[in-house]
Amino acid sequence: MTRISATYDIETPCGLTHAAAVLAGEQSTGTFVRLAAETDALRDRSAARVEQIVPTGTSATPSLPCRKTGGKYERGLVTVSWPIGTFGLSLPTLLSTLAGNLFELAELSAIRLIDIDLPADFAHHHPGPQFGAAGTRQFMGGHDGPVIGTIIKPSVGLNPAETAALVKTLIEAGIDFIKDDELQANGPDCPFDDRLVAVMQVINAHADKTGKRVLYAVNITDEIDQMWRNLDTMQTLGATCAMVCMHSVGLLGLRAVRNRSNVLIHGHRAGWGLLSRSPDIGIRFSVMQKLWRLAGADHLHVNGLANKFTENDAIVAEAALSVQSPVSRHASPPHIAMPVYSSAQTIWQIDPARSVLGNDDFIFCAGGGIMSHPGGPADGVSSLRDAAAAARQGVALEDFAKPGSPLHRAIDYFKKPIIDLPSFAT
Amino acid sequence: MTRISATYDIETPCGLTHAAAVLAGEQSTGTFVRLAAETDALRDRSAARVEQIVPTGTSATPSLPCRKTGGKYERGLVTVSWPIGTFGLSLPTLLSTLAGNLFELAELSAIRLIDIDLPADFAHHHPGPQFGAAGTRQFMGGHDGPVIGTIIKPSVGLNPAETAALVKTLIEAGIDFIKDDELQANGPDCPFDDRLVAVMQVINAHADKTGKRVLYAVNITDEIDQMWRNLDTMQTLGATCAMVCMHSVGLLGLRAVRNRSNVLIHGHRAGWGLLSRSPDIGIRFSVMQKLWRLAGADHLHVNGLANKFTENDAIVAEAALSVQSPVSRHASPPHIAMPVYSSAQTIWQIDPARSVLGNDDFIFCAGGGIMSHPGGPADGVSSLRDAAAAARQGVALEDFAKPGSPLHRAIDYFKKPIIDLPSFAT
Repeated sequence: MTRISATYDIETPCGLTHAAAVLAGEQSTGTFVRLAAETDALRDRSAARVEQIVPTGTSATPSLPCRKTGGKYERGLVTVSWPIGTFGLSLPTLLSTLAGNLFELAELSAIRLIDIDLPADFAHHHPGPQFGAAGTRQFMGGHDGPVIGTIIKPSVGLNPAETAALVKTLIEAGIDFIKDDELQANGPDCPFDDRLVAVMQVINAHADKTGKRVLYAVNITDEIDQMWRNLDTMQTLGATCAMVCMHSVGLLGLRAVRNRSNVLIHGHRAGWGLLSRSPDIGIRFSVMQKLWRLAGADHLHVNGLANKFTENDAIVAEAALSVQSPVSRHASPPHIAMPVYSSAQTIWQIDPARSVLGNDDFIFCAGGGIMSHPGGPADGVSSLRDAAAAARQGVALEDFAKPGSPLHRAIDYFKKPIIDLPSFAT
Repeated sequence: MTRISATYDIETPCGLTHAAAVLAGEQSTGTFVRLAAETDALRDRSAARVEQIVPTGTSATPSLPCRKTGGKYERGLVTVSWPIGTFGLSLPTLLSTLAGNLFELAELSAIRLIDIDLPADFAHHHPGPQFGAAGTRQFMGGHDGPVIGTIIKPSVGLNPAETAALVKTLIEAGIDFIKDDELQANGPDCPFDDRLVAVMQVINAHADKTGKRVLYAVNITDEIDQMWRNLDTMQTLGATCAMVCMHSVGLLGLRAVRNRSNVLIHGHRAGWGLLSRSPDIGIRFSVMQKLWRLAGADHLHVNGLANKFTENDAIVAEAALSVQSPVSRHASPPHIAMPVYSSAQTIWQIDPARSVLGNDDFIFCAGGGIMSHPGGPADGVSSLRDAAAAARQGVALEDFAKPGSPLHRAIDYFKKPIIDLPSFAT
């Protein structure tokens, strides 16, 4: 029978073997007392199974408050498998099973979901990204290198006309991609329809003149019916990229957008810290992004190297790479998405961002890295594009930059951050 | 201008005042460098505002891994307000704003969202529970006292016929309410339609005979289109209660169900531990339940007193009480929902469960507390109903129970747990 498996990093005062059994029981046929109806045949058919336990250490105190106590707290990696007959291929039910009540078990003083192994059926059943990197380039009317992007700032406060004016400045600066901030959706001060009309006028005019269609990831995040209306409005106006705040709408909302969308889906991960910040409870990005890709995201935010938030470079590199790895090792389609680097990015992060992936199929979003360039935003974009060319040719920025060029001025202006890539990415 | 405010429990090595300003900036008009376009007028109109800072302590080490470090880590309660003009009344955008990137801020070594104060507009704009406690009793054909319920166990593994046979046993035992386990949704081993047909045959036959319509909370959790199909199937078969795993479908999924539902919505919180387990990152139940109620849940799981999981009784009592409190202190409608106590519940928890609320408008789910009664499930249900009567009359179980009665036998059989209620609930 086809099974799905998940690996958890757990800590327990009850012994790893017992804790793993409780976890598997709670999440399948068991309850806190064994019932007569839980026959051996039923268990054989439907129960979750502990596949592997790898102890990783012990501590004297619990990592999280824990009702049960013990002399020591054992930590380990526990792999559990489920027959998919009990829950089928539904992503919401997958969540209820792999990320449900188990987070509240009294036998656990830490629990993180760190890996899932999806059967081929999942990769076949779910739509996955509709366009990916190749489609993204087509929507732009052809494009080489990484997609150089930026974010409308201030995040909120501009009205539709002011937003469109900023978009015009950015387009004239040569930008490839512009996104709304995740806070900007459809408030009365900057309504979705008015904003999109104003912005698409600028984008369409530029496309008509130059053949280059700048991507505008307009934030469609809203209730389901409104998101669908937003997609209709996008189609009417020729917009090509819908941004979705994935935590705000859930997997199901993302999937519902994908089902009715014929445009790029730009997956924003605002709220991700809630699931990832603690080392003792949560879900690893490499797990969650598989589900987001199954549900249909073409682009996925992965934070940036040397970002302004808390994740270190190893986590960001792992996240970026995971987005370009097959969604299931058991089958095609691989459902590859395009990683989006963002947060305090400048010319200095392009080469390491590329070296993590080994290709140019990524979006590189810079805010200050473009707008604060001493020569203005056009020089900002130009310096990033030259930095990408240098990276592709394997030449150091300092050697690549011609004296007085925008890249040269950027080298002088932007402080080089310390980037500490893990060995797999260098 | 109408504002919405949120209170966070934060910890920071950067000073509370600075950290609060960073949080407010990140979640509104600011970015990591101040832009020229962020004018004073724009800030006045659109920026989040720090309303209050209440220091609560300091520690020498950070609670969560934190990129920034300091000699001490200050903890405090920070209240921030936003003008609703920037994001409107959409629940998903509310989430992006109040529970978005801020969880990843490098200036914070702990952050929990612990309170929100919703303007009246939210209570008016969103549908809220369609039926609540009064409607629940009507669906049952009239009912007094707490609703005595149970869960289909084993959680998964029974086929539709076996499920219906168990439902028949439970109905004959006098139960009011039966729910699917959150793991049981629409897998090939127990398809939704087949299960519902089989179960409703039993329930409808009993209703035709006795006038009592037992509630069956069938788990409709699935992708959006399938949930809507499930609602249609429910209507065809006369089913009256749809269970939704709220984390698995998100706020938007819950709201989408409410928009097309004419039945009770039973909100299951599987996965809640992910947001609540850590004292240093997450969202408090009293916050999240407001959003679930706005989106339309009639019933909300709150765990049980003396449960098998990790929450203590004070947390459970606060959760239960929050569900019956007005959703906004600024306006009607209050959107009251019905709390559902569940997890290792027996006759001993009914009186304290009632005393928390001061009324009988709750669902009390017992598994072993019914099925393991030495006299069988009918005695199990009878003993719980007598325990509820004793609670209502303010009589101790031991004094209320007639010798040899099911309640008397339950008193002997089930171990009395230690329950430690907070002062507000006694």
